[in-house]
This record gives sequence, structure tokens and C-alpha cells, in this order.
Amino acid sequence: MSQHIVVIGGVALGPKAACRLKRLEPESTVTMIDQSALISYGGCGIPYYVSGDVSDAIELSQTSFHMVRDAKFFKEVKGIDVQILTKATRIDREKKCVEVENVTTGEKASINYDKLVIATGASPRTLNLPGDDLQGVNYVCNPDDAVRIREAISKGQVSNAVIVGAGFIGLEMAEALADMWGVGTTVVEITEQIMPRLVSPALATMGQKHMEKGGVTFHFGETVTAIEGENGKVTRVITNKRTLDAEAVIIAAGVVPNSDIAKEAGLNVHDRGGVFVDEFMRTNDPDIYAGGDCCLVKNLMTDQPTYLPLGSMANRQGRIIGTNLAGGESRFDGVIGSFVVKLFETSMAGTGMSLEMAQAAGFDAISVLLTQIDRAHFYPTKELMTLEMVVDKSTRQVLGVQGFGSAGDAMVGRINTVAAILKTKPTIDDISNVEIAYSPPFAAAMDILNTLANFADNAVCGISHGVGPDGFKELWDNRESNECYFLDCREKPDAEPVMERNPEHWHNVPQGEVRQRMDEIPKDKQLVLICNTGARSYEAQITLAANGYENVINVHGGMASIKKYGVEV
Amino acid sequence: MSQHIVVIGGVALGPKAACRLKRLEPESTVTMIDQSALISYGGCGIPYYVSGDVSDAIELSQTSFHMVRDAKFFKEVKGIDVQILTKATRIDREKKCVEVENVTTGEKASINYDKLVIATGASPRTLNLPGDDLQGVNYVCNPDDAVRIREAISKGQVSNAVIVGAGFIGLEMAEALADMWGVGTTVVEITEQIMPRLVSPALATMGQKHMEKGGVTFHFGETVTAIEGENGKVTRVITNKRTLDAEAVIIAAGVVPNSDIAKEAGLNVHDRGGVFVDEFMRTNDPDIYAGGDCCLVKNLMTDQPTYLPLGSMANRQGRIIGTNLAGGESRFDGVIGSFVVKLFETSMAGTGMSLEMAQAAGFDAISVLLTQIDRAHFYPTKELMTLEMVVDKSTRQVLGVQGFGSAGDAMVGRINTVAAILKTKPTIDDISNVEIAYSPPFAAAMDILNTLANFADNAVCGISHGVGPDGFKELWDNRESNECYFLDCREKPDAEPVMERNPEHWHNVPQGEVRQRMDEIPKDKQLVLICNTGARSYEAQITLAANGYENVINVHGGMASIKKYGVEV
Repeated sequence: MSQHIVVIGGVALGPKAACRLKRLEPESTVTMIDQSALISYGGCGIPYYVSGDVSDAIELSQTSFHMVRDAKFFKEVKGIDVQILTKATRIDREKKCVEVENVTTGEKASINYDKLVIATGASPRTLNLPGDDLQGVNYVCNPDDAVRIREAISKGQVSNAVIVGAGFIGLEMAEALADMWGVGTTVVEITEQIMPRLVSPALATMGQKHMEKGGVTFHFGETVTAIEGENGKVTRVITNKRTLDAEAVIIAAGVVPNSDIAKEAGLNVHDRGGVFVDEFMRTNDPDIYAGGDCCLVKNLMTDQPTYLPLGSMANRQGRIIGTNLAGGESRFDGVIGSFVVKLFETSMAGTGMSLEMAQAAGFDAISVLLTQIDRAHFYPTKELMTLEMVVDKSTRQVLGVQGFGSAGDAMVGRINTVAAILKTKPTIDDISNVEIAYSPPFAAAMDILNTLANFADNAVCGISHGVGPDGFKELWDNRESNECYFLDCREKPDAEPVMERNPEHWHNVPQGEVRQRMDEIPKDKQLVLICNTGARSYEAQITLAANGYENVINVHGGMASIKKYGVEV
Repeated sequence: MSQHIVVIGGVALGPKAACRLKRLEPESTVTMIDQSALISYGGCGIPYYVSGDVSDAIELSQTSFHMVRDAKFFKEVKGIDVQILTKATRIDREKKCVEVENVTTGEKASINYDKLVIATGASPRTLNLPGDDLQGVNYVCNPDDAVRIREAISKGQVSNAVIVGAGFIGLEMAEALADMWGVGTTVVEITEQIMPRLVSPALATMGQKHMEKGGVTFHFGETVTAIEGENGKVTRVITNKRTLDAEAVIIAAGVVPNSDIAKEAGLNVHDRGGVFVDEFMRTNDPDIYAGGDCCLVKNLMTDQPTYLPLGSMANRQGRIIGTNLAGGESRFDGVIGSFVVKLFETSMAGTGMSLEMAQAAGFDAISVLLTQIDRAHFYPTKELMTLEMVVDKSTRQVLGVQGFGSAGDAMVGRINTVAAILKTKPTIDDISNVEIAYSPPFAAAMDILNTLANFADNAVCGISHGVGPDGFKELWDNRESNECYFLDCREKPDAEPVMERNPEHWHNVPQGEVRQRMDEIPKDKQLVLICNTGARSYEAQITLAANGYENVINVHGGMASIKKYGVEV
């Protein structure tokens, strides 16, 4: 069978779908149009070009074997016709054609299709701020933006930068500017934390504290009201609380799907944007497929349509569309919602639902937070990793795991492992027994993921009662007024410096001596137990509970967590 | 409820089960006996102590907070009685007691139990070689062995060492000796490859070549017939093919379960050793549990009993036994068979079945091998990773994945991800769409795991025909006699050096020029297409197939694979 395919959009999904189709059905023809001159680039690489990790912007548009993926490449190597600088203005579903317009010449034309792929992507969310058209105000959208930002910085024109938004792109750009170029970088975020909703306040604070050490300043709960400048160039950002000097502003307030053309063609589109597709990535018109950043897909945790604009989704969906264009029946079941972001020497990652998301979705959810060494404790390259697991108390279903760790692949590996089974609705016990390949350089004999689930088990069964570093901070900050008895369960030499700084409030009974020295421990106070990571304080909690102590709290993740969280004791 | 528990064996599973029980049921009492003086050590750390990565052997017996896990620790901190140097000689199930004997004094006693845990572990397989009692001949069993080996080496008494067996322990010890101490290290292995059965010959050869660069010599298909010495000390190892000088010999021929005491008590034990347990880790006597290295567990891929002596299994099973001793109903469903081993700057890992195992189990199995960059190709810290996926052709079930990569956590993370879902019997399509958290520093937009499954899909569908590096080597070695036409699909500057070395046999048409230059490519020969990693040669294969070429082979993993495999072209 030979057919003609039109693809609207030449980045990520479009090329992937087109190339897959051409491999399966070489006799068919493809026309791919894009309104830009630049196609098939790795937009996710922009922060790494700005930082200098990627030396030349052209690398973002190259294959892994250094061929530039331009119109000529697609024609010669892939057999695909590409029309750049060509905007699709209307889809005529009856006539099965796409009306297009050359953005340079204004010339109009119409391209017939047998099947159509809508791969129009997304656009940065604009905030309609006064002054957002000043020179130096940027969105992070395509390699041209990247080149412009890096050029201004490398010419020494930028002493201070303001980033609006503390999501993925905002944080990646903050790292790029502060780390590599020493630009005074301030992030203004409307919510109270980085990566809002995606991770808990405790994990978010750990990431924030690490970025602050790297020179990034954060202002939370704050909104930008205007951008001001001189001679057409930005100089200041005005928020509802302060004025910030800035020679560069990056607006990273998320993206919105480019789904207007689909909506105007009468395809099913969400009220707030985003094309609806079925599991074959087909719209409600069987001859029209859509995928990537312009689409909504099913969230496998909630069964609701969700928006997850990631290059990885576009690539996988693109292959599926290519297969189905050629008569296949390949399915995209939906997404779990995994993410990862590098923050200087650390990483933050997650999958499934955060506690906030789970509670909002109606689950009877709790979370436990654990800080533990990421491989055998005697292995020299070990590092601390913090993981938080969200579970439903009544069904014991694991709803999500989020984490904060070093910048290597150890943490994201654990997150991917959980992600792989989340759609099977695993219980705590499934993760307690998930098989992590064991050898001391790569894992602990009881791996952190197994321990995390064991910990959740103990919490759900009511054996372990605890607070995270945020809960500890609240108790500690109010230590003068509350009746808490802070008991350090580590050995004396570890506890002593803290006791010296806090002679009234910090007490020490090593966990191994709790049985023998129980008379020193008051029964009438709220006991707050802490050790390095929470393991010994958990044991102490059990010993005390067995001896009639009723009011005992264990600090999840122990000193390691509160240090990452930024609490000084 | 208060009960008395007896645990036979004080390493890994025994302590774990005992401690978990004591946390759940503090009022119960536990007696843990071990015939050795040393308990609760991390035996898996021995190679890292020998190498010097772990500086002091005591670290292997410490908790992560540097407390030595000795009898005093268990008594004071855990409330567990430990009797060291105490050998269990018989289990009397009727009287519910264990007869014991002090190995120093010979004193005998009997310990009653309400419930019993058999955690007798495993012993190194002895080969009954003449001379295996000479000084300098070692098994890798407990920290005492480790101390003895390292002492001899650090005193300069060892110039050459022979290791018998190329499994995990043999390879870890080979690295320890060659890498850290510069000892001339030779591994003698009875089969034809390292890690026999667990990985394919292709992956095994990649690991072997890397270890050879590190100074390790291998002799495959060879058996040790005798060990010889002078003045009671080893000096030579005699094989069926040669004599090797050696001042140290390490016998690493696997381990056998210590299940005699269970068998003598009438418990169900496999003919070749290994206690049978149910999913609650219970033997056929409901008051007797067993776990860890003395047991067989269910292989979830084959539903057959299998032997997987790993510290991680012992720890997880130990917790389950502890829970069940306290009246719980915790289950150990079985094992997938994941493993990982560090080999100098690389790692080898796998899960599920290798091709050999799958074919032996009756599956209509094939495998595909892929070499690809482990994160975004423009990200500076990228590395090559090789993965092999084993699938059933008729059902498309994924049976296993094995890999060879750098020594970081990137590859084992992919293996763990697949392992997590293997028991759900995933198809190729499930792995094509497995959700890998995406960001350029951590993954490619189309991650290697997704690509691997896509590649398997293409192979099963008959779109891609190929050979691995082993198949290529055979074709290349016979290039004078066979009718192969080796066609390099890379750009000319990449292909030119190989063409100059092989003007008769090596040809070049860049993939992008295949359509235009098809008349240069013979139709009557067996075409062997190769590029850097196999992606462009796959495209070329499709183009040629669409134009009537019938005899075209693609080299899986391309130049990257054959280089790792050690083929020079």
C-alpha cells in the first residue's frame, strides 16, 4: 500500500513518526512541514548548551553520529520531504488537506493527505507581564533562544538574572547560569517550594538548600508584576515584594499545548488545550493522529487525561504513530509520570503520585521518608540517598516514590524500577521484595528500595510513628514552648557536640543502652528520637513502646535528612 | 504471645530474622548459635577488602554506624542471645530441640525451641584436588580467609596467583589481585567463557577483553588437575594443558548449600542439596523455617526450584521469616535471578534468562544485542552501554536482559527496571514503552531500553536481520573464502582507515547515499552492513530490502560492539 502522509511539526514526534513509517512502508511518501527554519532539535538540551556543557548549539540538531538533521538530511537519508518556514493554517478534514502559508513570502498552498499527524508541540506559557518584550527577556523554547542567552552572558552583559518559575526548566537554567557563569541568579516562584506538587516540601527544601549553596537565591510565594528596562533592554524585575536587578530574565512558567489548529478542525481538544487521543494515538478522526507536547495522554495512576510534555514521550509516541500509519496496531497505554532533574551535584526524581497528588486524588495516603546509603555501607563510593514513598493506608497500594540524591544514576535507577511496576498497582510488599541486583559496589544487601517499603510497612502497621525533617523542624523551632524531649540515640561522641550547643534540650542515650538506662528517659513528655538515618531511633522507639512509653516520635531520615533540609541543631 | 526461637547460623539471614522478630515481639526470646567465632559479617565484601577498597576487615562486621555486630552487640542492642563456637549437630523435631556441641571444648547441650530457623548458609565447592591443603590455597568464605590472602600479598609473598573459576567471586578476586596489587593473575575456567550460562558468549567476551587489558590472563576449557608446592607452600598449579606458577591459589568454583542437618532431620531437601521451603519460607515442618544460602527458592521465570545464594536474598527472606515467626503471613514469591558484578571500570549485569537458559527451558528464543549511548548523545558524560534482550519469538514475551557497560549505576538501573516487571510476563511492547525518567544527564529521549525492545520488535517481525559481534567475527575471519561483501555505512572519513587496511574486503557507502549509489552495491553477494552502533546499517538494510536485495545482514551493535569484543578490522 502506498499512501501520502502529512506531518505538521518537525521536532521530536513528527520526525520520529515519519521515519518509522518510511522504514515500514518505503513506498509511501511523507511531507513534513514546520513553521520554523530549524527542525528536529533536542530542546531538552538547551540548559546544557547555555551552561557550556554542550559546546556548540549545532550538537542539539545532530544525530549521535554528527549529521545535522536538516531538510537535506531528511530528504537524502530518510526519503522525507520537509518544508520549513511553512505554517499550517487550517486542516480541512472533508477534503483531507492542510492549508499552509510560507511565513517568509506569505505564499499559500494546500497539501493533500491520506493520513495526517499533528505534532505541533507546545509553547512557553506567557505571563502577559508589562515589559516582557524588552531585550534580555527570554523564553526557553528553541536553540535560537539558547544561543541568544549564552551570547549575552558570555559577552559579560549579564551580572544578574531572574528566573520566573521553579519547575524543571527554571531550575536547570538557574544551575546553568549560577554554576558555569557565576551570574547572580534569583528564582521567583509563585508557590512555596521548588517543583511544586511533584515532590513533598521536605524533598523540595533539600534541593533548594543545595542550590542555594551553589549560589542561587529563591523567593517563594512571590509573583512578578512587571519587567522594567532602559533603552529597550531589561534592567529590573518587579515582584509583589521587591525589586530585583536583572540584565537577563528567563520566563519558565511551564508550557501550553499548541492545539488550536486541531480544535478549529473540530477534533476533540480539552478546554484548556491538549488534543485527546486514544491508545493508538489517534484523534477522533481515524485518519488523523496526534502526539507529543500538543496532546493529553492517560495517567495510569488516576485514569484521567494528563499533560506530560517530555521528549521521551514524543519519541515513543512517534514510533507508535509511525507503526500505526503503516497499518499496525501499536498502543500507548498511558503514563506513570516519571521525572528527573539534575540540580548541581544532586538529582531529584520521582514517579507516580506525590503525597499531595495522592491526597487530592482521594487516596487515604501517607508517606514515609528514608535516608540511607545507596550501596554497601563498607563500599568506598557510597553516598546518601533520600527516598519518600507514598502509600494508601487502607489498601497498602504504593502510589509513588520521589527522591533526592547525588547526581549519578543510582537514584533515578531506583525510581525507574518502581515506575516499571506502578501500573500493576503494587502493594508495599511487592516493593519490599523487588529484586535489586546485588553486589556491594551497586546496592546494599537490603537495598534502600526494599528498606523504604519495609519502613512504609512499619508505618502502616503502626509500629513506626514518625515525622520527616519538616516535622522535626517545627518541633525543634518550638522547643522552648513545647514539652518535647529530644533524645539522640547515637553513640555519645556523635551526640556530644549537639548536647554542648543545646544543654537544655538535647539528650543522649545510645540505642544499645536504652534498656539499661530507661529510668533516665521521661514518660510524661513527647519523646523525639533521632539518630543518623532513623534506623537506631526506630529500634529505640520499639524498645520504649514495649515498655509503656506512649508518646514517642521517630525522626525519619535522622540527622542526615535534617542536615540536607537545612536545620541546624 | 511469648515464645523461644532458636536460629542456627549467625550470618545474614539468621540475625535479620532474629532482629525482626524481636522488634515485633519483644517479649519472645531468641538463641542464635554459630559454629564460628565471627558472626554477622558481610561476606560479599571480601573481594573489596582484599583489593584494599575496604581498609579494615572489621568494617565487614560493622553496622553502618560503626558498631561491631558481635555477640555483645546482639545481646545489648538487640536483646538476642548468641552462642558462638557452637555447632548444631542434630535437630530433634519430636522433642523440638537442637543438639549442640561447643567446637572448642566439645561440651554438648540441647536447646529447646518453639520455632526454629535454619540459616546454615553455604560452603565453597571443594574440588578434591591433590595439594589443596597446601598453604596459600584459599577458598573465599569468611573474613579470616580475606585477611590471610591480603596479608600474604601485602607482604610481597605473591607474584603470581591462579584463580579457579570465572564466576562472580573468581572475577571479583581476579580484579582485586591484578588491579590493586599488580599480582600476575590467571583465571582457569572449565567452560569456554566467563560467567557461563548467565550471559551470552558475546557479552562474556567483552568482559573478558576488558579484564585482559587490566592484566588478567584467562584459560578457558581447561581444568586444574593438581596443586603442587614446596615446604608445605603452594608453588604451581597443574592443568590439563599447562603448568602455572602460583604462590596463591583461590578456588572459586561456586558454593553448595549446607543442608545436611535439615536432611538428617527428615526435612524436604533437594537431592543435590538445598532445603525446600514454601512461600512463607517454611519447611515441611510448620515450626521450622529456613532461608538464605542453604535453601532453594522458586524461579519465577521457570516455576522451578532454583539456587541463588546472594546476601540480598538472605536479608529479604530473613525479614519475612521474622515477620512470620511473630504470627505474620509475609510471602517470598520467588526470584527473577538478577545479578551484577563490577569488572575493573566496567560492569556486567543481567536478569531473567540468558539465551542459553531460555532455549534450555524450551522457549523459542532469540536475542538481540544493542550498543548505544546511555544518556543524551550531546551530554558530555555519556558512555556506551551494550544490552542483550532475550525474547520468545512466538509469544513476544521478554525473558531476560543482560548487559555490559561502565562501572557506574546506569546499566544496573536498566536491569533492575526490567527485573521489576519480568514476573508479570511482559511482552516486547511493554519494554518498548517502559517509562524511563527523562532528562539529558540521565537518559536518552529514546532510552536504550526502549530502543532495545524496538530492535527486538524489528527482529521478531523480520524487518531486521543481524548477527552479533561473535557472528561478525566468524564472517570476517573467513573473509577470504566466503562471499561476503562488508559494507561500512558510516561517513567516508570514518570508514577510510579500515578500507586502507583492507582494500579488498572493506567497502563504503554512507547510509545517506545508499539510494543514490545502489549500483555500486552487488546483489549477488552476502552483504554485511556495519556502522558505529547498528542504527544506520539497519536503515541501509531496509533501503536495500525495499530494492530487492535479499541477502543482507546487519551487525548488531556495530563497530562499538566488535571493538569491545576484541575484533580488529
